[in-house]
Amino acid sequence: MNLEQQQQDDQQDTNPWGTKSWTYISSLKQQSPLIQCITNLVSMDLIANTLLSAGASPAMIHSILEIPDFTPHTQSLLINVGTLTPEWLPAMKAAAGVANRLCKPWVLDPAAVGASRFRLKACIELVELKPTVIRGNASEIIALSLGSLGSMKGADSLHESSDAVEAAKSLAKSSGAIVAVSGSVDFVTDGQRVVGAHNGLPMMQKITASGCAVTALIAAFVAIDPAHAFEATACALSVFGLAGEIGMCLANGPASLRMHLIDSLYGLDQETVVQRVKITSFS
Amino acid sequence: MNLEQQQQDDQQDTNPWGTKSWTYISSLKQQSPLIQCITNLVSMDLIANTLLSAGASPAMIHSILEIPDFTPHTQSLLINVGTLTPEWLPAMKAAAGVANRLCKPWVLDPAAVGASRFRLKACIELVELKPTVIRGNASEIIALSLGSLGSMKGADSLHESSDAVEAAKSLAKSSGAIVAVSGSVDFVTDGQRVVGAHNGLPMMQKITASGCAVTALIAAFVAIDPAHAFEATACALSVFGLAGEIGMCLANGPASLRMHLIDSLYGLDQETVVQRVKITSFS
Amino acid sequence: MNLEQQQQDDQQDTNPWGTKSWTYISSLKQQSPLIQCITNLVSMDLIANTLLSAGASPAMIHSILEIPDFTPHTQSLLINVGTLTPEWLPAMKAAAGVANRLCKPWVLDPAAVGASRFRLKACIELVELKPTVIRGNASEIIALSLGSLGSMKGADSLHESSDAVEAAKSLAKSSGAIVAVSGSVDFVTDGQRVVGAHNGLPMMQKITASGCAVTALIAAFVAIDPAHAFEATACALSVFGLAGEIGMCLANGPASLRMHLIDSLYGLDQETVVQRVKITSFS
Repeated sequence: MNLEQQQQDDQQDTNPWGTKSWTYISSLKQQSPLIQCITNLVSMDLIANTLLSAGASPAMIHSILEIPDFTPHTQSLLINVGTLTPEWLPAMKAAAGVANRLCKPWVLDPAAVGASRFRLKACIELVELKPTVIRGNASEIIALSLGSLGSMKGADSLHESSDAVEAAKSLAKSSGAIVAVSGSVDFVTDGQRVVGAHNGLPMMQKITASGCAVTALIAAFVAIDPAHAFEATACALSVFGLAGEIGMCLANGPASLRMHLIDSLYGLDQETVVQRVKITSFS
Repeated sequence: MNLEQQQQDDQQDTNPWGTKSWTYISSLKQQSPLIQCITNLVSMDLIANTLLSAGASPAMIHSILEIPDFTPHTQSLLINVGTLTPEWLPAMKAAAGVANRLCKPWVLDPAAVGASRFRLKACIELVELKPTVIRGNASEIIALSLGSLGSMKGADSLHESSDAVEAAKSLAKSSGAIVAVSGSVDFVTDGQRVVGAHNGLPMMQKITASGCAVTALIAAFVAIDPAHAFEATACALSVFGLAGEIGMCLANGPASLRMHLIDSLYGLDQETVVQRVKITSFS
Repeated sequence: MNLEQQQQDDQQDTNPWGTKSWTYISSLKQQSPLIQCITNLVSMDLIANTLLSAGASPAMIHSILEIPDFTPHTQSLLINVGTLTPEWLPAMKAAAGVANRLCKPWVLDPAAVGASRFRLKACIELVELKPTVIRGNASEIIALSLGSLGSMKGADSLHESSDAVEAAKSLAKSSGAIVAVSGSVDFVTDGQRVVGAHNGLPMMQKITASGCAVTALIAAFVAIDPAHAFEATACALSVFGLAGEIGMCLANGPASLRMHLIDSLYGLDQETVVQRVKITSFS
């Protein structure tokens, strides 16, 4: 082993989350898991491009008629309620049911859960179907944890992510899901452990559906390692944030950031990931 | 007051529309009003990113079940019929009804109104619900003003905006709405006054949903100053066009123009806005 | 005739497919045909921008109520089943019926046809409505040709395009349609003749809906020359691939490639098209 290799190994020891993140990224590109996305109308393009760039194979299939045939072939499932209407809910529940029956991971994005009683009720019903991971912003996680509309502002959060850590732990305990709260720091908890993913930058909140996209990336990472959804979730959040940081070097505003973020996600290299992923323990 | 300040004030006096536009932009970033968008499937991504870049908070919420809970919390409402189906119309009407009842401004984009009798009838019914502003291209405003399908070509206009000024005035008088006609010059009228917004460039018509996006920006500006919808509409049209002009400096075609336009909208500075917004009176 | 003109003419003789492609491109910009698109929710933005950049006029109109009024005014019709639900199918069939009755060309994209029995059955029914052109990836064409779900992976192909040439010929013969198979080489057949379009690059498969977009471009080219759908299809495939090749010079990844591809499509010049379109005979 030469010195360079030695140094690299030392470095990897220094940042095990970075090493783990790289493992997920390279596995994703190798295995290209099929991710079914039942998601909102605003996010479909960005989610599909995020998953493709990361190496996964997205499938936007949401007709209830197709779920018995299609969902069994997927490696994980994303459900996002961002533009929920009553017609979409049965397909979401059916797909979650198939995922559960076949022990496939599925991830819930309770987008704008506090927008209405209809949406809150739908999300509570979906949580009862045992998602592997739930990711939202602080306002969403608080509303879902309390089961009340609370104070929401559409899809944008009125709270800091740190305000929602206790709500996230409570939701994780009651639901059995890994719960992630996005914000200036992204927190991930299984109800006991809490880690914070520090990558990312504020301008990402000016890109519509960027939250939806990171939830999709979580679904892809969890597809690779369903037995370690806590770790996969934290890594996905940091990797997406890191892609944003790298993209920001070339960006002049939210639209170019969106483009460079996706390009960066596609081109991530081992050294950068191992060095720059920043996840720390808060428990 | 030093000389520089003096000169700046003189300049502002020279271009009161520029000064007004900047006031709207800075208020928008400060207040971040919540804009409910019930819009077509093609435009959702661009509209949401336009509103976010301008500082507003978009919410694409279109289920009729959510309107009683959600619409009262919004500062304005956008309704765009670009991909209308019968299922969407009741939610549009319900949301417009809530907006009216609570004295919130709402803006109608009669996209491709002449495509069918179904769509024309729907738009006429929506106009009866007293939109604060109606924005369309020349063919759309003519068709809506006459209440006839006329000669349409899908979403693209067959007429110059100047051809539609009389139709716009007539529609403004009959509906009580501010009416805006997009084109090489964008005209805005309340039925009496007519102003022209001269910013923008032809290539913007090669960006799908750019018309939808400027209607959304009108909804955001009107949310800031509902008592002056005429002024807010004219300023929104010019500011969007100006963002396109600035974006064009970096663009090589319609797709890069789209990106740079959004970036420019995000980064607009006072001096540029005050100097370059160009709105003139035609009445 | 000067030497330069002479050389250019010689060159055109050398590459008749390039010359033909340029004729389509320039006619498209001149005539700006109206293309009705009944397409999936993921692809609408990219399809509309592709068509606009190429000079066509897209209309995303999918309500069955609008088809009797609107479809007769179009020059061609695109039907893409990528996010099919039962509610959309009647409008697709009605529009195809109008196109047939009025002798307008229509193009079918059987996206992810093997995802479910529901989708396969729908596509078979659509094929019975005599599309002018069918374009899919290898897995899609094989599934549709065999009428069986086969081995599919969502929207992505598990086969090389060359694996599907016989299936494409068989489908062309049984359906009467021109059949195109996208892949590293794009094959086009009328059941007898086979040509391969060699432009394009692998990274285009990392852009969601890029396949949908090229089908839309086929619909536009076929609108220009419905009597020669075989040639129009091959040219559209090569031109789209060429736009990708040119875009790649400026791109750093899939998202910037998407942008530069659209810009390139908008800015294609005669010399480049005549020189670089590469279509060869395989029959």
